[in-house]
Amino acid sequence: MTPYEQVLAELPAEIVVNDKDIINGYTTDFRKKYTGESPALLRPRSTEEVTSIVKLCTLHSVALVPVGGNTGYCGGATPDVSGQQLLISLQRMNKIREVDADNLSITVDAGCILAEIHEAAEQENLMFPLSLGSQQSCQIGGNISTNAGGVSAVRYGITRDLVLGLEVVLPDGQVLSNLSPLRKDNRGYALHQLLIGAEGSLGIVTGASLRLFLPAASRVTAFLAINEISDLMPLLAKAQRYTGEAVTSFEYISGASLDLLFASKPELRRPIQTPSEHFVLIEAASSSPVLGLDQAIEAFFEDGMSGETIVDGVIATSEQQRQDFWNLREHIPEGEVLNGGSVKHDVSVRISDMARFIELGSDLVHRYGQGARLSVYGHVGDGNVHFNVLAPEGAESPAYLDEVSAKVSPCIYDLVAKLDGSFSAEYGLGQDKLPLDQIYGDPLKRHLMGKIKDVLDPNKVMNPGKVVGSQICDLS
Amino acid sequence: MTPYEQVLAELPAEIVVNDKDIINGYTTDFRKKYTGESPALLRPRSTEEVTSIVKLCTLHSVALVPVGGNTGYCGGATPDVSGQQLLISLQRMNKIREVDADNLSITVDAGCILAEIHEAAEQENLMFPLSLGSQQSCQIGGNISTNAGGVSAVRYGITRDLVLGLEVVLPDGQVLSNLSPLRKDNRGYALHQLLIGAEGSLGIVTGASLRLFLPAASRVTAFLAINEISDLMPLLAKAQRYTGEAVTSFEYISGASLDLLFASKPELRRPIQTPSEHFVLIEAASSSPVLGLDQAIEAFFEDGMSGETIVDGVIATSEQQRQDFWNLREHIPEGEVLNGGSVKHDVSVRISDMARFIELGSDLVHRYGQGARLSVYGHVGDGNVHFNVLAPEGAESPAYLDEVSAKVSPCIYDLVAKLDGSFSAEYGLGQDKLPLDQIYGDPLKRHLMGKIKDVLDPNKVMNPGKVVGSQICDLS
Repeated sequence: MTPYEQVLAELPAEIVVNDKDIINGYTTDFRKKYTGESPALLRPRSTEEVTSIVKLCTLHSVALVPVGGNTGYCGGATPDVSGQQLLISLQRMNKIREVDADNLSITVDAGCILAEIHEAAEQENLMFPLSLGSQQSCQIGGNISTNAGGVSAVRYGITRDLVLGLEVVLPDGQVLSNLSPLRKDNRGYALHQLLIGAEGSLGIVTGASLRLFLPAASRVTAFLAINEISDLMPLLAKAQRYTGEAVTSFEYISGASLDLLFASKPELRRPIQTPSEHFVLIEAASSSPVLGLDQAIEAFFEDGMSGETIVDGVIATSEQQRQDFWNLREHIPEGEVLNGGSVKHDVSVRISDMARFIELGSDLVHRYGQGARLSVYGHVGDGNVHFNVLAPEGAESPAYLDEVSAKVSPCIYDLVAKLDGSFSAEYGLGQDKLPLDQIYGDPLKRHLMGKIKDVLDPNKVMNPGKVVGSQICDLS
Repeated sequence: MTPYEQVLAELPAEIVVNDKDIINGYTTDFRKKYTGESPALLRPRSTEEVTSIVKLCTLHSVALVPVGGNTGYCGGATPDVSGQQLLISLQRMNKIREVDADNLSITVDAGCILAEIHEAAEQENLMFPLSLGSQQSCQIGGNISTNAGGVSAVRYGITRDLVLGLEVVLPDGQVLSNLSPLRKDNRGYALHQLLIGAEGSLGIVTGASLRLFLPAASRVTAFLAINEISDLMPLLAKAQRYTGEAVTSFEYISGASLDLLFASKPELRRPIQTPSEHFVLIEAASSSPVLGLDQAIEAFFEDGMSGETIVDGVIATSEQQRQDFWNLREHIPEGEVLNGGSVKHDVSVRISDMARFIELGSDLVHRYGQGARLSVYGHVGDGNVHFNVLAPEGAESPAYLDEVSAKVSPCIYDLVAKLDGSFSAEYGLGQDKLPLDQIYGDPLKRHLMGKIKDVLDPNKVMNPGKVVGSQICDLS
């Protein structure tokens, strides 16, 4: 028997899935960039079963790849091609363990779908703010393991800021649990912070306590056309000031991104007829039944219009219109796919460098890219922008995009590095970004990560080849 | 030469202080509970000099105790009695390195006094929210190393939430630096989160990038008398709802704490004449020039008064009156000192368990404490309360308090443990809380902390005997 066969032989049959069709749902990543192989998908029903699985894998030195909703962008949950790595999914561990409304907290199994957590919070007239395009299928364990960002981080923070405690099965099978939903706890190192964003390389997150917030009593959503890219971030500052830091989303959408979408989906309607190169979807919300935001938004609008920052704008007057604005924002990636796909760059820079990055980056692409099209959009309120490059209209996309990856991407990443930004703002490293980390990452950080990985997972069982890479460079 | 003499001999004379008077400023902790000895205080002027010091200490296996403003409550910056440990202070590294107003960030040397950072932010018409009683003397390096909380965490979070990046000299002398003030960066493990709250046991924080916020355009500060302890946390929920989560402070002050203060400082004035056992100092702020908070606070007040939750209340009508309210809050610890001192318990529980904890804890003290007096106050908006016990009036305080520590404290900590709370909400472990950690802490967490400490600081140079303790228990 091979080592993985030994593991499988010792597990209860009910938690081992051999069906190739089911397994194949996880052996190719969301972006179809990586395809691996795996002999089985393990579906534990409890933390105890996760413990048994992890102990057996460590005993037999079998690699374990935790999978969530398979919505990641970096191949972090895709097994390698050896066919020796086992997949583990927590989809059966999907209970809301507790909602403590008076503590503004919720405790959940890691296999809960994000949207289910939203619903559980809403039932208590509260709100869990993590909000992503994939929320109907992504799992909170994956959100935690990739430290997901999303569209409301400008107000509520990224996943790291929303986690109060974790339950984690460590590579040796011990369970580290601090699920008590406390706001403050200064008893030593913040070990759970190490697990957030570790992409399953240090253990398997099986449960989490999360912060909840008050729901919106009033909300304003507006679609704005702005004059110049240099107006973009000052506009956020203005909106924050007028609304008392109540902005929940501030999403940039380039005119080019919208054009791609409208070209391929003519059934969609433009919220603003005035042509512009730059649009913003802004939303502000307040739990207050007395402090209407309308006044604040009006003052903001007036200020923006009189200063010629805002060229034109529409405020949603119905939930339907609001959904229409968001629908546009959420379909931007589809607009790229329908136009032959794109080479994505998920980067972050200082908020103060955002306009400069977009300008210089666009120049780079137009100079090197010979007719390349750009789709630039994203969570600029967090200094995070998706800077994506498409082939020229009519060009043979795959070949062209390979060329972009080889020739243009390095220039874009050089620019990000020059601005002290990050080549992975919210997607993580997975396997996709490891080569970039070799070029732009900090060797000392890599070295320390390797040391921590070594000490917690000496048998290299937990998602090997992801995040920390396979080889540990020796700097000592 | 002893090992520490070898280190001192190799350092530039200008950074070595031998003056006993200066050294003695650091050999006793703020609460005068611990007194150690040290042959020298090292005062490096740059990160490079910190590096030299750390390298020499590691080479000669000499222990290094980082000191800040010496305002900690757990003896975390006090050397042991061996007289072999060197002190290192970053007081000469006190430059504001950069304020990037458009990025809402500030980058500072770790030796900056907290109040200096407030001023630097204010000069740019911005605000750094970390706010503590000791802000005129504590250093940001100490705040980071103890993950300080303070009076505005209910809105802006604890220190951990305010740090965007750190520069750290590791025990081997290498400098880990990610000072670029990015909101999002998912390139691998969040190593800097491990350093926050590590009390100098994993390296020396030499610089930090911090988040800034918009200053208040309107602010409401009120002093309220409430009916029952069970009304306390629902009152915060109400205030958050009416103000749109704009509450910046929510401080509980027991009537007993106020009585102690007024008994010893008759020059102070009671803000409310109505007698009550429970008071709240609440503050809300908004950057908006159009959304006045008055309306929201009025609605909140009306609701609280009509529901008989609020018995009486005063809203500050001038900055002086506001300062008077805060002055009372900040002098509560002094009120305890002037009444013979107290045994302090800095604990956290769920917000939903706060009233229950205060009630059950008070019962415990009154049952076991034979006339003991209580002083209960703190940042209850974060689930954090200072639950302090004083001797009966006229009793011999020191002896009585020793008895309280021996007999009552264990019951209080048992209660906290029963509620899944923390015996150290914001003070850290230092040396003072290590025995508690042996009783109530998680052995697995301690084991992992020891492993991480071992791998980063194999020579046990960095603040030995603090946080992780001296012995590492073996669980493997």
